[in-house]
Amino acid sequence: MRPFVFINIAMSADGKISTRERRQVRISGTEDFSRVDRIKAESDAIMVGIGTVLADDPSLTVKSPELRAERVAAGRDEHPIRIVVDSRGRTPPDADILHKGAGRRIIAVSRAAPRERVEALAEHADVIVTGNETVDLAMLLADLHHRGVRRLMVEGGGTLIWTLFEQGLADELQTFIGNMIIGGADAPTPADGRGFLREEDFARLRIIEITQLDDGLLLRWSVEKG
Amino acid sequence: MRPFVFINIAMSADGKISTRERRQVRISGTEDFSRVDRIKAESDAIMVGIGTVLADDPSLTVKSPELRAERVAAGRDEHPIRIVVDSRGRTPPDADILHKGAGRRIIAVSRAAPRERVEALAEHADVIVTGNETVDLAMLLADLHHRGVRRLMVEGGGTLIWTLFEQGLADELQTFIGNMIIGGADAPTPADGRGFLREEDFARLRIIEITQLDDGLLLRWSVEKG
Repeated sequence: MRPFVFINIAMSADGKISTRERRQVRISGTEDFSRVDRIKAESDAIMVGIGTVLADDPSLTVKSPELRAERVAAGRDEHPIRIVVDSRGRTPPDADILHKGAGRRIIAVSRAAPRERVEALAEHADVIVTGNETVDLAMLLADLHHRGVRRLMVEGGGTLIWTLFEQGLADELQTFIGNMIIGGADAPTPADGRGFLREEDFARLRIIEITQLDDGLLLRWSVEKG
Repeated sequence: MRPFVFINIAMSADGKISTRERRQVRISGTEDFSRVDRIKAESDAIMVGIGTVLADDPSLTVKSPELRAERVAAGRDEHPIRIVVDSRGRTPPDADILHKGAGRRIIAVSRAAPRERVEALAEHADVIVTGNETVDLAMLLADLHHRGVRRLMVEGGGTLIWTLFEQGLADELQTFIGNMIIGGADAPTPADGRGFLREEDFARLRIIEITQLDDGLLLRWSVEKG
């Protein structure tokens, strides 16, 4: 058993999630900002890869006081559980995700993570150790389900998202497509990693929603095979 | 003066135009195939970069006999002028684009292209020499306009498209988004090259059409600034 896993990303019209220097850029607008805050508030947990933590230092908190109040009124924490997939335990102990906002944190590391780092992180978060060199995502998701996580939002980056698709662990993809060209052969994209080589291996999707939002477009895809 | 330049690409839901091995893959379906053939038939010329010629060996001919007959009835060649942007003159003399179908070809090279290659290509195509190390696209477009090209379709690849956006030479972008994830940090994307680094430099677009087609989506964007 594992949670329902949905991926939320914003990309440019040419499929980039930031510049090649991985500088955080504004791809969507206020309508999409509200949408993302709402789906975050509806999730039990929100997950990112270590690359995103190191590049953007996100807190992944719910921004709207109303949505936070709704969560509390429903007997939940103000913010979803915040999870970092961090095979080597490189999350900085002063990262915003460990300090901003109330609620639980989980750092998922592999057995290759240095012990002193794991101990430092354990002061701020639950640590889940799984996998030898890299985090075993299927095992992690099973563990999260066991801890009560039913709806898991994934906010990037490209390596984590790729691995979820490669291992068939994604259920839905929400893509905001912004009205700009970023370009760059080395700029990060929604799904990086090694990539599929054979057409028959591609993850297959089905469109379930198309909405114009801000000056771009929101696409919701259901994962049919992936 | 330059032609109206519109770019047509098909990409996966994660913004890839092929696998990292640059293997040609099927991203759209029969409806999009017909659409692309029609807009090709409506163009005066169709342009690709040398990378696309080397990877895919496309002929860029109009496939539909009806559309070819319409062109001929209107006093035009069966196929649009086929153009390769090929700074070093690397188009193989036996490339399909030089041999399949009636009509004119143009190879645009820079002054850095070796003379023997240019001479070999000149047997099969008009050669336009412009730019010192790489083809000067603005000069090339002016030359094409002078030759009567008013509507120019660009079919890739990522480097040529990037350069058109970087230099503000693109007017419209048509993107078919296919229902698959390809992934790959090194897979080619619609706009590769160096990429913009600063948000204020991004090319800016405006949505002018959204159509569901095959199992994907066709987006037409007008270039507002780029």
